Amino acid sequence: MTLHLPLKLDASAAASLQSQLFEQIRDLILRGRLRPGAPMMATRALSRQLGVSRNTVLLAYERLIAEGYLQSRPAVGTFVSFDLPEDCLRLNDPVRRGEAQGRQADRHPVSFVGRAQMVVNPKRHKLAIDFWVGRPDNRSFPLKAWRRHVLRSLAAAGPELTEYGSPAGLYELRCAIAEYLGPARGITATPEQVIVVAGCQQALNIVARMFVRQGTPVVVESPCYQGAAYLFESYGARLLPVRVGPDGLDVAALPADPVGLAYVTPSHQYPLGVTLSLEGRLRLLEWAWRVGAYVVEDDYDSDFRYQGSPLTALKGLDTHGSVIYLGTFSKSVGAGLRVGYMVVPRELVEPAATVKALLDNGNPWLEQAALAEFIIGGGYANHLRRIRQTYLARRDCLIEALRHHFGGGIELAGLEGGMHLVWRLPADWMSAAELQAAAQSRGVGIYSLPSGAAYEPRPSEYTDRTIMLGYSSVTERQIREGIARLADIVADSRAPARVPAAVG
Amino acid sequence: MTLHLPLKLDASAAASLQSQLFEQIRDLILRGRLRPGAPMMATRALSRQLGVSRNTVLLAYERLIAEGYLQSRPAVGTFVSFDLPEDCLRLNDPVRRGEAQGRQADRHPVSFVGRAQMVVNPKRHKLAIDFWVGRPDNRSFPLKAWRRHVLRSLAAAGPELTEYGSPAGLYELRCAIAEYLGPARGITATPEQVIVVAGCQQALNIVARMFVRQGTPVVVESPCYQGAAYLFESYGARLLPVRVGPDGLDVAALPADPVGLAYVTPSHQYPLGVTLSLEGRLRLLEWAWRVGAYVVEDDYDSDFRYQGSPLTALKGLDTHGSVIYLGTFSKSVGAGLRVGYMVVPRELVEPAATVKALLDNGNPWLEQAALAEFIIGGGYANHLRRIRQTYLARRDCLIEALRHHFGGGIELAGLEGGMHLVWRLPADWMSAAELQAAAQSRGVGIYSLPSGAAYEPRPSEYTDRTIMLGYSSVTERQIREGIARLADIVADSRAPARVPAAVG
Repeated sequence: MTLHLPLKLDASAAASLQSQLFEQIRDLILRGRLRPGAPMMATRALSRQLGVSRNTVLLAYERLIAEGYLQSRPAVGTFVSFDLPEDCLRLNDPVRRGEAQGRQADRHPVSFVGRAQMVVNPKRHKLAIDFWVGRPDNRSFPLKAWRRHVLRSLAAAGPELTEYGSPAGLYELRCAIAEYLGPARGITATPEQVIVVAGCQQALNIVARMFVRQGTPVVVESPCYQGAAYLFESYGARLLPVRVGPDGLDVAALPADPVGLAYVTPSHQYPLGVTLSLEGRLRLLEWAWRVGAYVVEDDYDSDFRYQGSPLTALKGLDTHGSVIYLGTFSKSVGAGLRVGYMVVPRELVEPAATVKALLDNGNPWLEQAALAEFIIGGGYANHLRRIRQTYLARRDCLIEALRHHFGGGIELAGLEGGMHLVWRLPADWMSAAELQAAAQSRGVGIYSLPSGAAYEPRPSEYTDRTIMLGYSSVTERQIREGIARLADIVADSRAPARVPAAVG
Repeated sequence: MTLHLPLKLDASAAASLQSQLFEQIRDLILRGRLRPGAPMMATRALSRQLGVSRNTVLLAYERLIAEGYLQSRPAVGTFVSFDLPEDCLRLNDPVRRGEAQGRQADRHPVSFVGRAQMVVNPKRHKLAIDFWVGRPDNRSFPLKAWRRHVLRSLAAAGPELTEYGSPAGLYELRCAIAEYLGPARGITATPEQVIVVAGCQQALNIVARMFVRQGTPVVVESPCYQGAAYLFESYGARLLPVRVGPDGLDVAALPADPVGLAYVTPSHQYPLGVTLSLEGRLRLLEWAWRVGAYVVEDDYDSDFRYQGSPLTALKGLDTHGSVIYLGTFSKSVGAGLRVGYMVVPRELVEPAATVKALLDNGNPWLEQAALAEFIIGGGYANHLRRIRQTYLARRDCLIEALRHHFGGGIELAGLEGGMHLVWRLPADWMSAAELQAAAQSRGVGIYSLPSGAAYEPRPSEYTDRTIMLGYSSVTERQIREGIARLADIVADSRAPARVPAAVG
């Protein structure tokens, strides 16, 4: 006798009737409700039972046979397959599944211990005016030019869309970057030394995989960029923090013992915004040479320099090939492109390209092709000039608003370049975290070090007193309004407690 | 007395006169040829000496002052900065640099040991007809539709180009993938369980970072995909190879001891092309549950299934959340997009997204947006139907050509789906490597296991006898011609040694 199957099809569901039928019968088999060898209803009878076309049932049966759940014997009929291992099937039984849930704890545990930096502000929807750090102006994206380059690249595309490219990057883009770095950053590099990556964060992974093992010491600035600190930690690095002073990294405090790696941001220190002096740069290179270290120079926002000429990068002073230079288009064009690059000493070209291949077989082609055209055609330089003017005006507006409300004596740092400045709060004010919270409640986003993607191994004189203000993505009007709101908050907090009026 | 400087400017060079001047003076200072405190020539005199405008010299001096190489004292003149540390400067002296080169060996060594899989055929330029494996047809790319989706996405772009997105991927794309996987692969997943990655290779990194430490045992198929084996090895895994038989992985040979991770390709085993039977799938899941392992199912080419309906993925049978499913658009649309995805059990959503953020802060936006539109609008399903027909015709043509030249009894495997098939050479023929070399010399690319991105821990019965033939990127005409050339080679090699004709 054949079974009358407990099936229920829903004509209004997204899945076709045929696949609903397939899945329901499969589940009955896997749960042991239909046992191996059990005869299946004839297709004609089942189609009548369900009120569907016979073809629907035939196709579902066909698929069940193809996948091995059913077997068909000519002139006899269709059966649940005998080849299914009963002991496995019972695992799918709801009762057994209940038991099984209790065993969830036996599952192999995740051995990864780590945290990720926050690149998206989780509070952004609550903020009318947001001084979030390192964020390009939304309206700054060179959309017209980008569309043109994308279309031109697509029109000229041969096999680049279907096939893998060189994991180290599109050669045209590597050439364009190498050529750009000469005048812009004083760096002499061959295209081969340029490795295209998915942003500085990926470059740090490549560096870590080349040099960091459990317990490897890595010099970092204190405070430093969260994304780098978390990344090195996740690979087991032992971080050796070196204090940042008013002239940048305190080079005299670098460890005397051999260290393999140091991570620095000399152009515009993250988070404090200070610039490492030329003397500091030379001493850092001398130290690197002496202890045998590679220095990772993260030049994340160096395209924006407002006073004087662009500063030669540390890599430009590096006559011994000690520096691994990291650049990105996330700040200058857009983070949504996910394109950055590293310039490595010759002996690291091959291991870095190998690690990049192991990580993801290379960047997507379209962004690389469009970006190469954008740089070579001069559009990139024009774009930089344009947004540099915008950001400079916003920086000036922010400085003016701060001085207007809080007096000319306020302590500001990191003004020479970049996309944010740093405000050191007076010692008798509320703490940076308190000011941040109060500002947030009035719709203004300002950031203390820990919420501004900065990392401090232990509390310092900066912790409670430092506010980071990103100005690149707020309009001048927003800047004035935001700082005025801050001024109200500070005034309120510092007003003497009100004496109740004497009652007549 | 001021120095007459050994400077030479080249008006025809790409760098401006001003930056040439800047760099040459900087180098003289760094090399110790211009000592701290040395007076600089007046700008007017130097401009005369060099035959350039005074403004050029002024700007170069200004930059040297800004960067700290020179100091200017009003009414006195300009000097080489006193603040430069002499001991560092001498490091830049050519003689000292010579010494220094000898110390190169003291540089911290790269601790990375690893190799990368080859995704680009290094011999491709020498081959008229190339049966390289896993390569989509160049002409198959849906360029018109893609251009439309790219333009539409760009037109609707808000801050997505300038800002970071969710590291786990664009939500629209995660939804589109989750919805697609139901009918296509029998997988039920929420969009949250879908993590967008830069291809299967990156997904393997995420898996490795979650589970693999030095010495961690990982079950792999033998033979298996090189990219996976090399990747796990690079993180220190101890590979436990389990033999692949005619029904796929030999499930009975899985280790009884607890193992955290197994990497398998059940739909179309890489490289051998066989499909793991339903019984094998169920037993594999039962094993995973018993030993507490996660099973990584790499479903790289499952979009192409020519016989019967699409097979339910292992993940579709996985009632206990043991399976981490990897999918890619590299085979179905194009490797140049660098988009793939993983579907993870709920408890792994958060660690996987954290690792993805640490790796690269997420995929580029444009490819994700265009792909989401492509899938949701139905273009992707149409595209798959179309190329499935093309690849099916090429597969049939290849089978026919092989049988025509080498007889109906030849051993072929992996015919049911994918983009390549496997030909097992008779025991008395030349080896696979020899046939590959001979074919190459006639402009035909065919691949033995090691050159076809396969990994075997030790030689097996497959090593010498297996030829992989990718048919997705060769035309039917090329297939017929290529196999005809192979037939000539085999005939030549098997012809009895010619007996010299007796001379009259």
